Amino acid sequence: MDFPDPLPLAPPPTSADERSPASSLATTDRISDRAATRLAREQEVGQRPGTLRVKAGALKPRLFMFSYNEQSYTETEYTDRYDELLAAFHGKPELKHWIDVRGYGDLPLMERLMDDFGLHPLQLEDVLGDYQRAKVEVFDEDRLFLVSRMTDFTSDLEINDDQLSIFTGPNYVLCFQDDYDDCLEVLRNRLRANLSQLRRKSSGYLAYALTDVVLDHYYPTMAAIGDYIEELEDRIFTERRERRLLNRILRIKKDVVRFRRLVYPERDKIAEILRLPDEVVPEELKTYYRDAYDHAIQALDLAESYRDNISSLADLFLSDQSNRMNEVMKVLTIISSIFIPLSFVVGLYGMNFQPEDQHGHRLPLNMPELYQPWGYPVLLGILALIVVGQLYYFWRKGWLSSD
Amino acid sequence: MDFPDPLPLAPPPTSADERSPASSLATTDRISDRAATRLAREQEVGQRPGTLRVKAGALKPRLFMFSYNEQSYTETEYTDRYDELLAAFHGKPELKHWIDVRGYGDLPLMERLMDDFGLHPLQLEDVLGDYQRAKVEVFDEDRLFLVSRMTDFTSDLEINDDQLSIFTGPNYVLCFQDDYDDCLEVLRNRLRANLSQLRRKSSGYLAYALTDVVLDHYYPTMAAIGDYIEELEDRIFTERRERRLLNRILRIKKDVVRFRRLVYPERDKIAEILRLPDEVVPEELKTYYRDAYDHAIQALDLAESYRDNISSLADLFLSDQSNRMNEVMKVLTIISSIFIPLSFVVGLYGMNFQPEDQHGHRLPLNMPELYQPWGYPVLLGILALIVVGQLYYFWRKGWLSSD
Amino acid sequence: MDFPDPLPLAPPPTSADERSPASSLATTDRISDRAATRLAREQEVGQRPGTLRVKAGALKPRLFMFSYNEQSYTETEYTDRYDELLAAFHGKPELKHWIDVRGYGDLPLMERLMDDFGLHPLQLEDVLGDYQRAKVEVFDEDRLFLVSRMTDFTSDLEINDDQLSIFTGPNYVLCFQDDYDDCLEVLRNRLRANLSQLRRKSSGYLAYALTDVVLDHYYPTMAAIGDYIEELEDRIFTERRERRLLNRILRIKKDVVRFRRLVYPERDKIAEILRLPDEVVPEELKTYYRDAYDHAIQALDLAESYRDNISSLADLFLSDQSNRMNEVMKVLTIISSIFIPLSFVVGLYGMNFQPEDQHGHRLPLNMPELYQPWGYPVLLGILALIVVGQLYYFWRKGWLSSD
Amino acid sequence: MDFPDPLPLAPPPTSADERSPASSLATTDRISDRAATRLAREQEVGQRPGTLRVKAGALKPRLFMFSYNEQSYTETEYTDRYDELLAAFHGKPELKHWIDVRGYGDLPLMERLMDDFGLHPLQLEDVLGDYQRAKVEVFDEDRLFLVSRMTDFTSDLEINDDQLSIFTGPNYVLCFQDDYDDCLEVLRNRLRANLSQLRRKSSGYLAYALTDVVLDHYYPTMAAIGDYIEELEDRIFTERRERRLLNRILRIKKDVVRFRRLVYPERDKIAEILRLPDEVVPEELKTYYRDAYDHAIQALDLAESYRDNISSLADLFLSDQSNRMNEVMKVLTIISSIFIPLSFVVGLYGMNFQPEDQHGHRLPLNMPELYQPWGYPVLLGILALIVVGQLYYFWRKGWLSSD
Amino acid sequence: MDFPDPLPLAPPPTSADERSPASSLATTDRISDRAATRLAREQEVGQRPGTLRVKAGALKPRLFMFSYNEQSYTETEYTDRYDELLAAFHGKPELKHWIDVRGYGDLPLMERLMDDFGLHPLQLEDVLGDYQRAKVEVFDEDRLFLVSRMTDFTSDLEINDDQLSIFTGPNYVLCFQDDYDDCLEVLRNRLRANLSQLRRKSSGYLAYALTDVVLDHYYPTMAAIGDYIEELEDRIFTERRERRLLNRILRIKKDVVRFRRLVYPERDKIAEILRLPDEVVPEELKTYYRDAYDHAIQALDLAESYRDNISSLADLFLSDQSNRMNEVMKVLTIISSIFIPLSFVVGLYGMNFQPEDQHGHRLPLNMPELYQPWGYPVLLGILALIVVGQLYYFWRKGWLSSD
Repeated sequence: MDFPDPLPLAPPPTSADERSPASSLATTDRISDRAATRLAREQEVGQRPGTLRVKAGALKPRLFMFSYNEQSYTETEYTDRYDELLAAFHGKPELKHWIDVRGYGDLPLMERLMDDFGLHPLQLEDVLGDYQRAKVEVFDEDRLFLVSRMTDFTSDLEINDDQLSIFTGPNYVLCFQDDYDDCLEVLRNRLRANLSQLRRKSSGYLAYALTDVVLDHYYPTMAAIGDYIEELEDRIFTERRERRLLNRILRIKKDVVRFRRLVYPERDKIAEILRLPDEVVPEELKTYYRDAYDHAIQALDLAESYRDNISSLADLFLSDQSNRMNEVMKVLTIISSIFIPLSFVVGLYGMNFQPEDQHGHRLPLNMPELYQPWGYPVLLGILALIVVGQLYYFWRKGWLSSD
Repeated sequence: MDFPDPLPLAPPPTSADERSPASSLATTDRISDRAATRLAREQEVGQRPGTLRVKAGALKPRLFMFSYNEQSYTETEYTDRYDELLAAFHGKPELKHWIDVRGYGDLPLMERLMDDFGLHPLQLEDVLGDYQRAKVEVFDEDRLFLVSRMTDFTSDLEINDDQLSIFTGPNYVLCFQDDYDDCLEVLRNRLRANLSQLRRKSSGYLAYALTDVVLDHYYPTMAAIGDYIEELEDRIFTERRERRLLNRILRIKKDVVRFRRLVYPERDKIAEILRLPDEVVPEELKTYYRDAYDHAIQALDLAESYRDNISSLADLFLSDQSNRMNEVMKVLTIISSIFIPLSFVVGLYGMNFQPEDQHGHRLPLNMPELYQPWGYPVLLGILALIVVGQLYYFWRKGWLSSD
Repeated sequence: MDFPDPLPLAPPPTSADERSPASSLATTDRISDRAATRLAREQEVGQRPGTLRVKAGALKPRLFMFSYNEQSYTETEYTDRYDELLAAFHGKPELKHWIDVRGYGDLPLMERLMDDFGLHPLQLEDVLGDYQRAKVEVFDEDRLFLVSRMTDFTSDLEINDDQLSIFTGPNYVLCFQDDYDDCLEVLRNRLRANLSQLRRKSSGYLAYALTDVVLDHYYPTMAAIGDYIEELEDRIFTERRERRLLNRILRIKKDVVRFRRLVYPERDKIAEILRLPDEVVPEELKTYYRDAYDHAIQALDLAESYRDNISSLADLFLSDQSNRMNEVMKVLTIISSIFIPLSFVVGLYGMNFQPEDQHGHRLPLNMPELYQPWGYPVLLGILALIVVGQLYYFWRKGWLSSD
Repeated sequence: MDFPDPLPLAPPPTSADERSPASSLATTDRISDRAATRLAREQEVGQRPGTLRVKAGALKPRLFMFSYNEQSYTETEYTDRYDELLAAFHGKPELKHWIDVRGYGDLPLMERLMDDFGLHPLQLEDVLGDYQRAKVEVFDEDRLFLVSRMTDFTSDLEINDDQLSIFTGPNYVLCFQDDYDDCLEVLRNRLRANLSQLRRKSSGYLAYALTDVVLDHYYPTMAAIGDYIEELEDRIFTERRERRLLNRILRIKKDVVRFRRLVYPERDKIAEILRLPDEVVPEELKTYYRDAYDHAIQALDLAESYRDNISSLADLFLSDQSNRMNEVMKVLTIISSIFIPLSFVVGLYGMNFQPEDQHGHRLPLNMPELYQPWGYPVLLGILALIVVGQLYYFWRKGWLSSD
Repeated sequence: MDFPDPLPLAPPPTSADERSPASSLATTDRISDRAATRLAREQEVGQRPGTLRVKAGALKPRLFMFSYNEQSYTETEYTDRYDELLAAFHGKPELKHWIDVRGYGDLPLMERLMDDFGLHPLQLEDVLGDYQRAKVEVFDEDRLFLVSRMTDFTSDLEINDDQLSIFTGPNYVLCFQDDYDDCLEVLRNRLRANLSQLRRKSSGYLAYALTDVVLDHYYPTMAAIGDYIEELEDRIFTERRERRLLNRILRIKKDVVRFRRLVYPERDKIAEILRLPDEVVPEELKTYYRDAYDHAIQALDLAESYRDNISSLADLFLSDQSNRMNEVMKVLTIISSIFIPLSFVVGLYGMNFQPEDQHGHRLPLNMPELYQPWGYPVLLGILALIVVGQLYYFWRKGWLSSD
């Protein structure tokens, strides 16, 4: 898990350094789901269905096997030693085994795994492919193929999601993921410590536990999103770079929408497991899956709640934008309304009507005010009165106090 | 129930004092659902499913037992005396018992309850956890596990919700809640007074009555929300702090949305009870649940109605914001339109075109107006005409009357 | 039915007189659904389910019985003579009876009715309560309990709705309503005149006819709403009190939404009747209910149509508001754009650059224009040209013609 | 079919003449669905269900019968000679008959038709009523009652819809419509010309063909709407009467919404036909109805597509409105920003600070600029520089080029 | 596939040249779905269902046949030699055949194909028609009629879609399309190269592969749309032609909506195939269709994701439009607020109050400032102070920095 910085609103300097400086701002302020476009672009057209193809840049597989029952527990890394793994697996049919494959970058090995554990090429294609929604498939009568999506919220404010593919067998669970690090360590510790019923129960229970631990990991992702939303809400009244703020609101909205789209199939998957016949998923296990179902619903509830928050944020933002315009207009109106009439008055007395015509005749009606002893002070007084009157008018309208 | 102040729009002084003064405004004007984030943050990752864990700060459990039949009624607090409770319970199999546990802060006691009353660890986990949607589960063939959510509307304009967990048994009801105070006192009084059929009917009826009393408590919550919406509507035309008003509209909207999300599962729970076989829920009891179903629908109807009201409020608010801008613009336009032309005219006669050139030649075309005996009064009259003309124009356009 | 005035936009003086004058405007311009809040407030918490409670202010019951078959017809008011009614009812088992109870304000009588006609306390609670959505319940194998909601549109622009509760029996229909006046008179006239098949058919047909007459009454309500919408549309271009207009649009919207919420359960009720077994509702009657179903659908269609109209009205309103702002801005811009440059020009020639310095040296470059014989007329011409040019520019832009 | 003029945006002069000139504009610019209100108003309250009532103004029925099989074809008008029609119908049981009734204005005839062809009074009420959504009913075991709605788009930009009611029988089809002109002539020509399989197939196929021809007529309606939308789109950049334009956008939106509401039941009707048992609708006919189902779906798709177009139009309109405001503001800002500072400068040099005081003392600091030989030209240069600078600033901001 | 230019925002010169220059801009900036209107217009009214009609301008059919099994492969063009094709097809019943018809412009040939391969006239009508949503039909017990829609994204920013109609038979696949170029070449290459299982599997698998290759082609279409959205996002901050930008946003939105509407039936089609009995689609093939189903879901997910992006783009655009207005207003307000008061002050000292009256009496109160030695410099200082003060005020409000 890669948690966001304490101040994720400022792009973290280290990650900014890793990119070219020119693109840093643009990258931070992206809204559109470039991952989707990249994904669409990577699809191969017309390739044979079930074609096994390893994506460029896939990691070299590391192989682990955890063999356990209630009394014993061994944990071995078999990277590059698949034959030994197979021998150990077949040598101990009385134990339960968790075969843990991390990284896909070795196609022949993948194909051997497919053949040795009876997987369908299309299933392995789902494993190696880049994107498969959470789903469950029953195959070989009573085996399950489960796909979960693990999420985390990066310091770049993106939701990262990785695929965890699980195949169950009579006494084993085979699981695949494309990364070395994962969120399953907590489960391994429970196996090691024999703290929970994990070692007592069937391997089907281990598959359940793997599914459940992924569900549990949705909560820190959501907590990070929630924290970020709160931070945005604090900023909404202080941030002046409106476009940037809106960008961020839209991005976090995109994240929440994406999160919901990840969790919905998860919920449907568990609902489908609950509908499977008891021969495939025993009633006892279903009790646990029912609990997981409640968790999935709760995660969706949280996501809905965040979506509402974000929509309120956006409403606030827009109202604020309108408010700011209003304030600009008020300043203009107040200043103009006060000084434009004043300018008229002083312009009036700047007129050049003459006290006498060219022939020297007195024109006593032409601006006699200009020749009064108190003309100027009286005029200043009038001007002051106008100002006071207008200020009173604006104060009464509430325009002088800012919101 | 903690009712809002008569004037909940002003943050109640006492609760404001309890917080640091600096944060008081911010707290009042929060929109986002911090409870959701807190909840997400508190989830433990990868913990064994069915792990019993008591939240920090949980209250020490108080134990009560109400034993009754149509003729007799006893009510005893067994806090710290669980063994005595158990003895009393087993000693009177002919009575019906309501075992009422308030507070979860004693894990060993909780586990004894689980074992003695045959609960599943996952069920107890649901009880002790912080959030479980309303649901019903059938277990042990014919026992019910019912979860309800009790709401109240705090003076902070938040919807508070607590969980009530109910387990039925052949002659008892075991219920859990995390608080000492609750909304069930009205039911206890009915038991004590033997006013209703409660003491005559089976313990399943008691479970129904508990569910129903929670449903009934939705109405005061909604009435409080409704009152607050009406108060906001009154304020919309007088309140000048727009941002604050919008904040409140958005918060009450959040409350209503949250309330709906609480009540929907409640309705679904009752619908599921109605679909249970008659062996689990006798037809006679279903008649009552059908009535409760109608109440849940009605509560949802009210919530929808409030949501529409709030959306109308928001529309009014936005239109008003726009209206205010319009009014600002009108003032600017009227003042500018009147005085800018006047200023031009007086500027015109402030020009210094000379009546004769440097050589003393008369230039009779240069501003002869300035040398007319009636020049100035005539000009003043023209200015007055312009003003009157414009005022007439604006009056005809309806700009002089405010809305 | 209380029809709106010909000019419902002006609050009818009589009803305004009935309220305190100060609150009249506020009342007219209410948007929020105070009825909902009042309803929520009135709910009693924790009262025993099935508690029979008569609301304060309920009218004293009036009892009527219509006894008929194809040949005979009698109609008697039995108010305060329930025993006689019962005797008459039991004395003529060969007739069909419509027992018509108006007003609930006599709890003991209500309880006698409940007992004598075999109603469930929860059913009577639904009758006496304030709000029950339209529904159908089968009880005692083949009896129906039907709830309908009767609407009318008051001169206050509120949708009023009353409840009509119908219980069927082998040879009778028992119906309850809380008001003396109702919309069923048309049906009574049909009974009296023996014009339709009503007297020939079973009492189940009477229950259908009651349901249908309520459905038929939705149309005048909708016609009144439709008329009001058209009136609002006419006003949208002339009304200057924008806030008031918006208030009204929002209120009528609330009415339509409320109407839809009343009719939806009505449709569902009829759909449920159609799904009942033929033993309960004979196929022949279902033919009639199918027709009623079409009517309910049509009423919903009309409501949808009105909702679209109102949303178009609101769009028009907002666009108009924006338009008005635009017009204000145009006036400001035109006046400012014409006179501000003119003011500059005349200001220019108001400058006091001197034709000679203090030592009497000629400064021939300083404003020689002021000493030209044609200076002033030429300048006036230039000013006129500027004005014409700008007017041409604004005319070409279409700013001079109002929309 | 009444097609819109080539230029439907201008109200067609002929139809404008038919109305009073004063109301012509208002009528053209109506948005609200007066038809709905009229319909609601016309409903009779409390009339006996199944009452046969002919609307005022209904046309006198014209009767036609088309009798055919693969070899022969006769077509006769039996207006006012119903008995002859009946005789001809019963006399040729080996032929298939299409009895085509146009106009409802003769209730006794309608009732004879009802009795002679075994219709239910409620069905005839549906026929004579003003509005029945498309539906299918099975009656008499294997007969169908089909309602379709025929549309056309009038030159007034309204969607007109008429009802076509079809009753099937063993060897005949009885159909009703309220107008003399219809869209079925194309089908009659196919019958006459024996071009298609129509004469070979069963009378059920004729019912299908009637249904299909109505569906086919949705396309010209939609094409007319589509043309109008395109025309509006062209006008959006040139039309200056904003309110009128918006009115039209809203009206065409209303039309499309109404059209969708007409077609949805049509689709549901056909889906229901496809679900009927093969005894009622033979599999061979269902193949044809499946094709009609695809057409209905396609019509809905087109309607959705138009709705999206209209919503984009409205977005464009609003953005354009905002844009226009922006442009007005820019003109104001540019002119004000240039000339207000200039006015200040020239005002500065219009001040009357004196070069010497009243005692003749030189005041050399008082506006010495006025006495410089190059004062005026230099000042003009400065003013020009200010103008150029500002223009450069606005040009850089892109305010000088219009969008 | 016709990929957009690297810079599709500028209309590609070549295609612009192909149109008349006057209409080029209009064409580029179209929003409404003219294709839909054209389609609606082309529908023939009342034509006999199942009428085979070739559209004007349909291409002359080219005929290809690919005959293969695991060992052998032949590929022949039979254009104008349909009889030879038929002979070859019937002569090799042990091979699987792909009969590939491109272009519909030869009705007799089409009818021969219909008769020879047992198609229904309605099916051929679907083939020859212009628009059929993706669908599957079972006919002749176990044959499938599949319709897919192939998309590409043209340089004109339109989504082009062509129909691919597939008929399966025991050992052949017959497919129709109206264009010579298609997206199936990749499949032909797989057949030629025998790289995949295509030649080993049944002809039903070929039909699947054809369906799948069309699905795969959705990804490049979506990638092109995604790229374009990103480009628009980059432009949103630099493009000044707002209307054009909005046009483009609306158009790409229309494209995405259209794309979703194309893919939804595709998903439903595959879901229906999965529900078909195993006799029609063997379980083994269903495994592959399940995979295709996941792909269709994924394509819909991508489309949803794009729709969200576009809606965020539109939000950004509108906020930006508002922002720009705000900026215009700020400039106006700053300039006006600074210079209007200054103008007043200088106007004040441009007044002509006289130091003495006409009789030569001193008027010492009339503007003595004008006679002070430091009058002018002091005034200039005051003016500078006002400017500085106002700039400080605006700077503190954040109006001087642009966003």
